[in-house]
Amino acid sequence: MRLLLLNPNTTPAITAQVAASARACALPGTEIVEATCEFGAAVIGTRTENAIAAHAALQAALTQQQPYDALVLAVSLDTALDALREALDVPVVGLTEAALITATMVSRRAALLTLGPRMVPMYAELIAHHGLTSRVPVVEALTLTPQDFLSSPLDAREVLREYCERLAQQGAEAIVLAGAVFAGHAAPVQSTVSVPLIDGAPAAVALAEMLVRLRLPKAQSGSLAAPHLRASNGLAPQLAAWLRREKP
Amino acid sequence: MRLLLLNPNTTPAITAQVAASARACALPGTEIVEATCEFGAAVIGTRTENAIAAHAALQAALTQQQPYDALVLAVSLDTALDALREALDVPVVGLTEAALITATMVSRRAALLTLGPRMVPMYAELIAHHGLTSRVPVVEALTLTPQDFLSSPLDAREVLREYCERLAQQGAEAIVLAGAVFAGHAAPVQSTVSVPLIDGAPAAVALAEMLVRLRLPKAQSGSLAAPHLRASNGLAPQLAAWLRREKP
Amino acid sequence: MRLLLLNPNTTPAITAQVAASARACALPGTEIVEATCEFGAAVIGTRTENAIAAHAALQAALTQQQPYDALVLAVSLDTALDALREALDVPVVGLTEAALITATMVSRRAALLTLGPRMVPMYAELIAHHGLTSRVPVVEALTLTPQDFLSSPLDAREVLREYCERLAQQGAEAIVLAGAVFAGHAAPVQSTVSVPLIDGAPAAVALAEMLVRLRLPKAQSGSLAAPHLRASNGLAPQLAAWLRREKP
Amino acid sequence: MRLLLLNPNTTPAITAQVAASARACALPGTEIVEATCEFGAAVIGTRTENAIAAHAALQAALTQQQPYDALVLAVSLDTALDALREALDVPVVGLTEAALITATMVSRRAALLTLGPRMVPMYAELIAHHGLTSRVPVVEALTLTPQDFLSSPLDAREVLREYCERLAQQGAEAIVLAGAVFAGHAAPVQSTVSVPLIDGAPAAVALAEMLVRLRLPKAQSGSLAAPHLRASNGLAPQLAAWLRREKP
Amino acid sequence: MRLLLLNPNTTPAITAQVAASARACALPGTEIVEATCEFGAAVIGTRTENAIAAHAALQAALTQQQPYDALVLAVSLDTALDALREALDVPVVGLTEAALITATMVSRRAALLTLGPRMVPMYAELIAHHGLTSRVPVVEALTLTPQDFLSSPLDAREVLREYCERLAQQGAEAIVLAGAVFAGHAAPVQSTVSVPLIDGAPAAVALAEMLVRLRLPKAQSGSLAAPHLRASNGLAPQLAAWLRREKP
Amino acid sequence: MRLLLLNPNTTPAITAQVAASARACALPGTEIVEATCEFGAAVIGTRTENAIAAHAALQAALTQQQPYDALVLAVSLDTALDALREALDVPVVGLTEAALITATMVSRRAALLTLGPRMVPMYAELIAHHGLTSRVPVVEALTLTPQDFLSSPLDAREVLREYCERLAQQGAEAIVLAGAVFAGHAAPVQSTVSVPLIDGAPAAVALAEMLVRLRLPKAQSGSLAAPHLRASNGLAPQLAAWLRREKP
Repeated sequence: MRLLLLNPNTTPAITAQVAASARACALPGTEIVEATCEFGAAVIGTRTENAIAAHAALQAALTQQQPYDALVLAVSLDTALDALREALDVPVVGLTEAALITATMVSRRAALLTLGPRMVPMYAELIAHHGLTSRVPVVEALTLTPQDFLSSPLDAREVLREYCERLAQQGAEAIVLAGAVFAGHAAPVQSTVSVPLIDGAPAAVALAEMLVRLRLPKAQSGSLAAPHLRASNGLAPQLAAWLRREKP
Repeated sequence: MRLLLLNPNTTPAITAQVAASARACALPGTEIVEATCEFGAAVIGTRTENAIAAHAALQAALTQQQPYDALVLAVSLDTALDALREALDVPVVGLTEAALITATMVSRRAALLTLGPRMVPMYAELIAHHGLTSRVPVVEALTLTPQDFLSSPLDAREVLREYCERLAQQGAEAIVLAGAVFAGHAAPVQSTVSVPLIDGAPAAVALAEMLVRLRLPKAQSGSLAAPHLRASNGLAPQLAAWLRREKP
Repeated sequence: MRLLLLNPNTTPAITAQVAASARACALPGTEIVEATCEFGAAVIGTRTENAIAAHAALQAALTQQQPYDALVLAVSLDTALDALREALDVPVVGLTEAALITATMVSRRAALLTLGPRMVPMYAELIAHHGLTSRVPVVEALTLTPQDFLSSPLDAREVLREYCERLAQQGAEAIVLAGAVFAGHAAPVQSTVSVPLIDGAPAAVALAEMLVRLRLPKAQSGSLAAPHLRASNGLAPQLAAWLRREKP
Repeated sequence: MRLLLLNPNTTPAITAQVAASARACALPGTEIVEATCEFGAAVIGTRTENAIAAHAALQAALTQQQPYDALVLAVSLDTALDALREALDVPVVGLTEAALITATMVSRRAALLTLGPRMVPMYAELIAHHGLTSRVPVVEALTLTPQDFLSSPLDAREVLREYCERLAQQGAEAIVLAGAVFAGHAAPVQSTVSVPLIDGAPAAVALAEMLVRLRLPKAQSGSLAAPHLRASNGLAPQLAAWLRREKP
Repeated sequence: MRLLLLNPNTTPAITAQVAASARACALPGTEIVEATCEFGAAVIGTRTENAIAAHAALQAALTQQQPYDALVLAVSLDTALDALREALDVPVVGLTEAALITATMVSRRAALLTLGPRMVPMYAELIAHHGLTSRVPVVEALTLTPQDFLSSPLDAREVLREYCERLAQQGAEAIVLAGAVFAGHAAPVQSTVSVPLIDGAPAAVALAEMLVRLRLPKAQSGSLAAPHLRASNGLAPQLAAWLRREKP
Repeated sequence: MRLLLLNPNTTPAITAQVAASARACALPGTEIVEATCEFGAAVIGTRTENAIAAHAALQAALTQQQPYDALVLAVSLDTALDALREALDVPVVGLTEAALITATMVSRRAALLTLGPRMVPMYAELIAHHGLTSRVPVVEALTLTPQDFLSSPLDAREVLREYCERLAQQGAEAIVLAGAVFAGHAAPVQSTVSVPLIDGAPAAVALAEMLVRLRLPKAQSGSLAAPHLRASNGLAPQLAAWLRREKP
């Protein structure tokens, strides 16, 4: 099985970092192929960048040279998830979607923790879009910056640990860590936190593998049926060609 | 006052059509400036095209030569609405947003009518994103195609009339018509339907004018504060420059 | 255009105060006509008074000597809003309704701030009635009294400022100020608060003007269609006559 | 125990009819005292009339000559329910509130049936205000008029029976009959309908008796605490005096 | 009238305690019959124990020697409530259900207070199951243990009082006390708390008496219709016989 | 990896049937161990039977002779799911939970189809309990009986096919088939239905495998932490011993 790990931002190092986490959990026969978008933000951190990244992700996904069996979105905002599900014939899974699903299977009421206050409503909207607000009603942001994790990892980790344990004491039965910045920090923190900390990457790989194994057919009706015969202007030729193709 | 009427698709004729409707309602001192995106679908009708259009709309909005006092999105899917509100210092209003708001002021329970079954969940999600599902709980699609409105306008209009009146008899107290295809057909149908039919274009212009008059400051915190100092790759130079500017 | 600014309480000074705010924002051709109810509370501050005021507002609205093109309710509880929409052939807009709508166009998640803890559930119910709880999920009350604003305006203003900024830091992207007591205080506070503070009066005027311009027909079916041929006892003669009129 | 059965409309015959139903179920020691409002609609059937009736009900409740232990609102729209709970020191129960509560104890998913399409959104809003939309998600209106029940009671009853059974077949596990018009028809129809039909009057009496027996104290804080020291103009002297009384 | 007070746990002393509270409020002609389950937890405090108790409660209810007119569940988790309503031909009422219903009739926004953090999500789910989350949105747990109430009742009571008053100051207009541990403590605390404290036992008895008096028929369709002709293995003979009986 | 496939009813043939479906999808190293409960309904079809089955499932799960790495509940009602998650140290997955999760990854709005009208509210409540009502808002029941599928499988299959296609035309983008009766019929029907039909068994196995691979720690706080030191009476000795064990 060939999984395309597609990073909607333009920083291959982040792709590689998520890929490492993904490979650590993938099944023996699963090949993780990395792809990084060609245009857009270095790191998606705003609504504007996320909107641009959707275009980049679609273009990258629809113009891959090699076929793939499923796509995992290597970004916590589940960028372009529904559009990719509409466009592609193969399963697509988002990191935060996967983490939220996992949280619902090990808790009744979970929290999502991210970095930076402006991300809080964006993740709350994403959870609502997934329909899971009643299961993951709490979204909070650490007051740290990504730089804090780079420059003082042990201090940052301690702040993360205290924050997670406080969330647990306030009733969170699992905690989704949303953001590439947490990679590598969840494991050492987990041992002293009383509830599971959930990283989306391994869950997303497992869910993608599951969907490939289930061999569900692509919907032929509804809002996720593939477009065809669509006219466009000014797009990358391969993307435009894909839009105007005959009914598959 | 200068309103940018920005069409996220790439068909200037549709821009012009919405602009005509907008100008018919604009205040005397309001200038409506048309803009059509440079890349993307001819007519947005799928999730894929809508995602691509968000990039195009942002690029167009952020790279206009002339300043403008507010932006009206000339598309029924309110494409990139939140991202534009984040990016721009001026008010932004979406067509369907404006129509939904209007519906809430003349009804307790409204319906939205569109064309094509695949649009139904997309509009239902948009209404939910606006938080108005309890006010506009019904979303339905005419079984006609845009071609039907072109080739047999009187027949299509009669189908539209019957559908609207049935929705009214089933409890819709106002009906939002979502889609450029309805332009020009609402007025003749209205006279024989017992509840208001709502077109988003004039409402959006009036709301944009209202927001300009209210002179509310741009938020400096939260998820709609403007990005700055953001690194990117492969974007149009003006867009990239805007992302990496100093804090405004 | 002639807007009836109807105050459901019985204190003309409050009517005049809201009217001043309304006139400052009205379009050149808009005449603001003040009306104050003939019976009821001096200042509506309880459920009982609000219920009585609904009768007073209906009687005042239906027995005006001069015609008017729209009605703006000069009270933050949107008293009798739906009943007025049912009764009148012209548009009706409430102050808090208008402020909430405005908040949804400049934020994703807003707060409403009022005075006095007993108002908190009343406003929360009003927001729910408007269907906007997911957009304005936070309702809080300053611990000040109206007297504090009169006797120590600068101190009160500082408390207001601190409260608003705290709400912003907790994620409110806009703040609706609900209550006549805030009039005149929002502007000086705004300059040092990082998110927009929203006063309902100018927004309500602009929305009323918009609805007049849109010329939507009055619903002939549903719960907002006008009553007719209704028998009553003991009401003001003009009100009783209006209820028993033939179908308009 | 003395229960005030207060009819917010002005037709004593309806009060008497509800009182008969209430007395048939009341406990031996319960005296049902009838009161009919002095002003307002003969029969409340619109939002306007319901708003006026709230004032009438408050005036009647607060100016009774004789004390009473609880108040039952003899109207299906639960007119002024919250305001009465705020104003009075004794328990208050609404007919539809009581019927809805009863429905939740004998079903998981109930329906409410009324007469006249304009009542449908009004009852749906009332159910939402009571917080019970998920338990009573269906509200429908018979296409009959009150006259049909008077002129052809057997025919109307058969229509009612068919409608109820259809609702049951569609999943309603109990049916609330909302409207005085149904009085006397539920019992004969019940025997051939497969789910319970619920009349609010006996339930409201029993709930009022329960609340009297529970002797819960009146809230001293929150939005249902009694008003005091409130200034007013133009009200009935007893009502005005009650509003301006010292803290009880 | 004969009410079966069925305790789903296996501690007769708790049954007796709830029965005392129930009898203090029951109508003169109401006989309260105590029943304690034969197997299960001494005190239900976990999901596992609650699930086991449902079986025990059904077996006890369906194998009583003497008939009864209604069943009151003497446990705060409303254990097996829907299953008992399905199985039995007589009304069934739960303690917390009754307390929640009572709270909705004396407040607009109530809180539920329990003991032990693990109970918080369990009660929140129960409130959601009853459809009352919007009316009782707050669920909190005292940090005391049942032992604290036994060993230092006055100290525990003071903690309870402070907690209740804080909830009231934060907007709770009534407080449901959920847990047998609070029995006997509510009354002394009530006098110094500004909102009603609600104990489920008397309310449940009154609601059961009400349902008996209303004589609603058992549903013959839907998910609460009685099972019949059901095959089973390994159950208590009387329970198995009841399941396989002919249609009643 | 050893998965315990636990059937909460008492019919080993059904266990074997689900196990066959589970094995067809399991990973090479996964051993599926079948377990059937010792007491309870032959086939769970009512609330009463489902409540009894929870006890049986807990007893079976906690008294297995051999250890297992995860538990899959071989029943569509996800019987005792939360209690098992509390009790066990290993992951637990329910069939319908797994099917619903799968549906959310291949559709935006799905439907659940079952057999028998009394199951409709039970599944709707289950979906609400999982928090997924907005994603799977439609629950309907075929008017067939299990016998129809046995006696006339081709006819029943055609009814199923027509029903599924109608749901798709009404907007269902995926369809969860809930009930063992559908086993073996989904595949032949799928080829002529335009949206994916989802069987819970393979999805549940894959999700259980995923959770085992993720090695998330058991929560030590919250409502899913394992009980300990719990006193009981009358339970199976092993179950009682487990409840009263020291803190693990």
